[in-house]
Amino acid sequence: MSKSISIFDTTLRDGTQGEGISLSADDKIKIAKKLDALGVHYIEGGIPGSNSKDIEFFKRVQELGLTSKVTAFGSTRRKDSIADQDANLHRILESGVRAATLVGKSWDFHVHTALQTTLEENLAMIFDSIAYLKRQGLEVIFDAEHFFDGFKNNPEYAVSVLSKAREAGADWLVMCDTNGGSLPHEVHGIVTSLNGLLPGAPLGIHTHNDCELAVANTLSAVQAGVGHVQGTMNGYGERCGNANLCSIIPNLQLKLGYDCIGEDNLHHLTNTARYVSEIANVNMPVNQPYVGNAAFAHKGGIHVSAILRDSRTYEHIEPEKVGNKQRVLVSELAGQSNIVSKAHDMGLAFDPSSEQYKLVIGKIKDLEHQGYQFEGADASLELLLREANGELQELFTFESFKMLVEKTAGRPVVSEAFVKINVAGQSIYTAGEGNGPVNALDNALRKALLQYFPSLKDMHLSDYKVRVLDDKDATAARVRVLIESKNIENSWNTVGVSGNVIEASWEALVDSMRYALLGQISPSETEGESLPRQGIVNH
Amino acid sequence: MSKSISIFDTTLRDGTQGEGISLSADDKIKIAKKLDALGVHYIEGGIPGSNSKDIEFFKRVQELGLTSKVTAFGSTRRKDSIADQDANLHRILESGVRAATLVGKSWDFHVHTALQTTLEENLAMIFDSIAYLKRQGLEVIFDAEHFFDGFKNNPEYAVSVLSKAREAGADWLVMCDTNGGSLPHEVHGIVTSLNGLLPGAPLGIHTHNDCELAVANTLSAVQAGVGHVQGTMNGYGERCGNANLCSIIPNLQLKLGYDCIGEDNLHHLTNTARYVSEIANVNMPVNQPYVGNAAFAHKGGIHVSAILRDSRTYEHIEPEKVGNKQRVLVSELAGQSNIVSKAHDMGLAFDPSSEQYKLVIGKIKDLEHQGYQFEGADASLELLLREANGELQELFTFESFKMLVEKTAGRPVVSEAFVKINVAGQSIYTAGEGNGPVNALDNALRKALLQYFPSLKDMHLSDYKVRVLDDKDATAARVRVLIESKNIENSWNTVGVSGNVIEASWEALVDSMRYALLGQISPSETEGESLPRQGIVNH
Repeated sequence: MSKSISIFDTTLRDGTQGEGISLSADDKIKIAKKLDALGVHYIEGGIPGSNSKDIEFFKRVQELGLTSKVTAFGSTRRKDSIADQDANLHRILESGVRAATLVGKSWDFHVHTALQTTLEENLAMIFDSIAYLKRQGLEVIFDAEHFFDGFKNNPEYAVSVLSKAREAGADWLVMCDTNGGSLPHEVHGIVTSLNGLLPGAPLGIHTHNDCELAVANTLSAVQAGVGHVQGTMNGYGERCGNANLCSIIPNLQLKLGYDCIGEDNLHHLTNTARYVSEIANVNMPVNQPYVGNAAFAHKGGIHVSAILRDSRTYEHIEPEKVGNKQRVLVSELAGQSNIVSKAHDMGLAFDPSSEQYKLVIGKIKDLEHQGYQFEGADASLELLLREANGELQELFTFESFKMLVEKTAGRPVVSEAFVKINVAGQSIYTAGEGNGPVNALDNALRKALLQYFPSLKDMHLSDYKVRVLDDKDATAARVRVLIESKNIENSWNTVGVSGNVIEASWEALVDSMRYALLGQISPSETEGESLPRQGIVNH
Repeated sequence: MSKSISIFDTTLRDGTQGEGISLSADDKIKIAKKLDALGVHYIEGGIPGSNSKDIEFFKRVQELGLTSKVTAFGSTRRKDSIADQDANLHRILESGVRAATLVGKSWDFHVHTALQTTLEENLAMIFDSIAYLKRQGLEVIFDAEHFFDGFKNNPEYAVSVLSKAREAGADWLVMCDTNGGSLPHEVHGIVTSLNGLLPGAPLGIHTHNDCELAVANTLSAVQAGVGHVQGTMNGYGERCGNANLCSIIPNLQLKLGYDCIGEDNLHHLTNTARYVSEIANVNMPVNQPYVGNAAFAHKGGIHVSAILRDSRTYEHIEPEKVGNKQRVLVSELAGQSNIVSKAHDMGLAFDPSSEQYKLVIGKIKDLEHQGYQFEGADASLELLLREANGELQELFTFESFKMLVEKTAGRPVVSEAFVKINVAGQSIYTAGEGNGPVNALDNALRKALLQYFPSLKDMHLSDYKVRVLDDKDATAARVRVLIESKNIENSWNTVGVSGNVIEASWEALVDSMRYALLGQISPSETEGESLPRQGIVNH
């Protein structure tokens, strides 16, 4: 039996301290579900009461019935006060979680400088706060802030902090390298000496990446005996980020033989990491270890021919183990198996040797080269594959659109769209207004289609994302728009790419409607008779 | 005296294997000069004869008289041939360098699978090639490819490879973790055992970042005794990249007391790293350790108030040591202390107890609540603060804009913008076209302003980001636009938020121009006389 390591994800709390990372309550719920499916043991959701987003998150997350334990974060009680009356501790209890993370000081310098209190009062703050939450029946994870700096400066005091937290009943004693300045051999040495000073203590580790050593420091601590690891997806976090769980988990599980999220879950890693980066709207570096798009990409010609002979020649693990895949940047072989498996999932029986199949592979490659990404746009990919398979009946054709945005000083901005499409031989011309240009286009297109396809009334756009693909030319850069749509039963995703954000949005919008209409039959000419032959301008 | 570590930079060779990295001969010359000024010992320039860029680089670099040694890279001779007649080795000699890097196999599996030759012939290839270049008077650095995988599989053979290279006269024996799959404790163990097997050998280390451990593996090797470190600026390189010298150098020099580039050069590190990323045209991740823009950025309010008391509370080193600087981010999580310190940076003397100060704090909080984010938009924040301080002279006022996007089937999309502003009492009406709506607005607004403020011609938009803030209402959701602008000397960031992406872009665009015009004087009525009194419609 391999030793089990408890994985504590703090993407939703410490991760949001990262520059440019801002998550709504809705974003947090989505990520929490995904982390639960990945199999992490703890999901730290936020700081209850610090803002309305976190209050909403803690309320909604309880209805999800997650397997992972959701934890709320807070500080130990204020100095010279009483834990039972501490507003922050009350907010943790009110949030409804069954586990809490309490942070306390373990560096004497910080007790003096930041808290401006005595070493004794700090110990009392830690003891009282933990004991209070334990009495209320919560599991308590104690984060010893600046533990390593504290240990280097005053080892007795740092150890007494952990010891006091343990005495109060803390379930995990987490040593934090808050400033990220420690080195792996230091971490290993300090954890090893703690094994002697606090035998059998349930130790955990929390590191930051300021020296580009957060992953190494975490491994060092685990190798020295800790059983609990804190980190974030993609290493999000303040300054240089927190320890990156997307690298730590495979390192521990594949290289060192520990059990973290279970062997069956590891292949969800890449997908989870990319999903989180999409929700956070942060570009994932292509070269991110394990889960990046280039993590198993081979460029050099010699490498490629060796790789094709035996992938172990230039790959340290099988990419599939973490749900990633090999990419040969110069080879036509890349990606095909993916599309074959995708088509299979859709129930399409493609013959991989057919001309038709080669054409669609070529088209997809060409589109990807232009910046389309089908990983987040299954519906657009399905439309392409069904079209290539000759089973897509187009129910309407595009003729034109115009989009006007007008703003006069002191008056609200106005967006109007004019859409001309052809359904069953009839040209339909509609107009729509909206809060913004895409909303106006959606309203105008919907108005045109609803006359023929009333089922569209149950469908609406539920998510809209814009990504600038190449920022070299700034306003002349290409953008990718991803749209998520929903009806009563399903949701689906579509993509559009253009140098023009309006055109890219339009593409994704049209794909969304086309997908919603899959399986519907073209309105007959007879049915058409009941509608005016002339274009209709509604407003 | 601290031990000296020889720093070998391979940004120009192994770095260019990274996805999306492509350097012209001119780029390489620029980077070589900058690396020389930083004080690295070796600059690997490329593979002579592999392409015309590298031939040109080796010719031109000789005229620069650099202090760093420029090296050329190549493989050992082909199997079953003679070193003296090997085309690749000849090209190294012809390149005019005084130092060469030769790569050879040290993993028996690779000798069989990739080279498809015998273990003995591989040893002969290594010996002959090194001995030949040494006879020609070159310094030779031997890169033992896959050394760690080789050692794990067949330690005797891996060691015999290093031993043979040493016998042939190699100046450095570099152990490469080519696939990036090794862990720090393995590297430490293997290097330590080599100290016994090859006493006094001049060992070096070359690692890759596939486990996010390249920096840690390098430190492990140095701590076990190696004296030569290979890596790239910003960790550029194939797959997940090479070992990042921008983290290794400060770790070795500031944390472990080794001498790498000298204390006086270390403060050039941030500037060099950013320069290389500019030339390579790759965005530097904001959270890059030591040199990133967020490496010493503080967001949390509690952190910020502690930082202002004593920077050691949340900073592991003084940022100035590596040429970086502390930044205090303004965000909803932050308290007032962030804004006080920001205003202070701008040279604004706000009285924190004044009514005017409370008003601007209230306004900023309100804007943040609406979705504005000033952490990435220093210029917009500065405009707000200067306005509150009564020192902002508005040089133009907005009257109206119209934006039209039109698309007809089979024809390219067209974007046009019409802008009306008032400068010095005159209403100016201009029109512009563009690749997209923002480009069209930029062109129209610029046309209006250039007549009065010719200095704007040096300014352009260099980055454009769009973030959807709340996806609940999808196309009716609010969006935040961030714009980065540049002129010859500076870059600045502005923000706009609206339910309408065009209006949000317009806001950020206008702030960008307002910031560019800070300190300029309003054109007088007299100057205005020389311009037509009527609105001008240009196209």
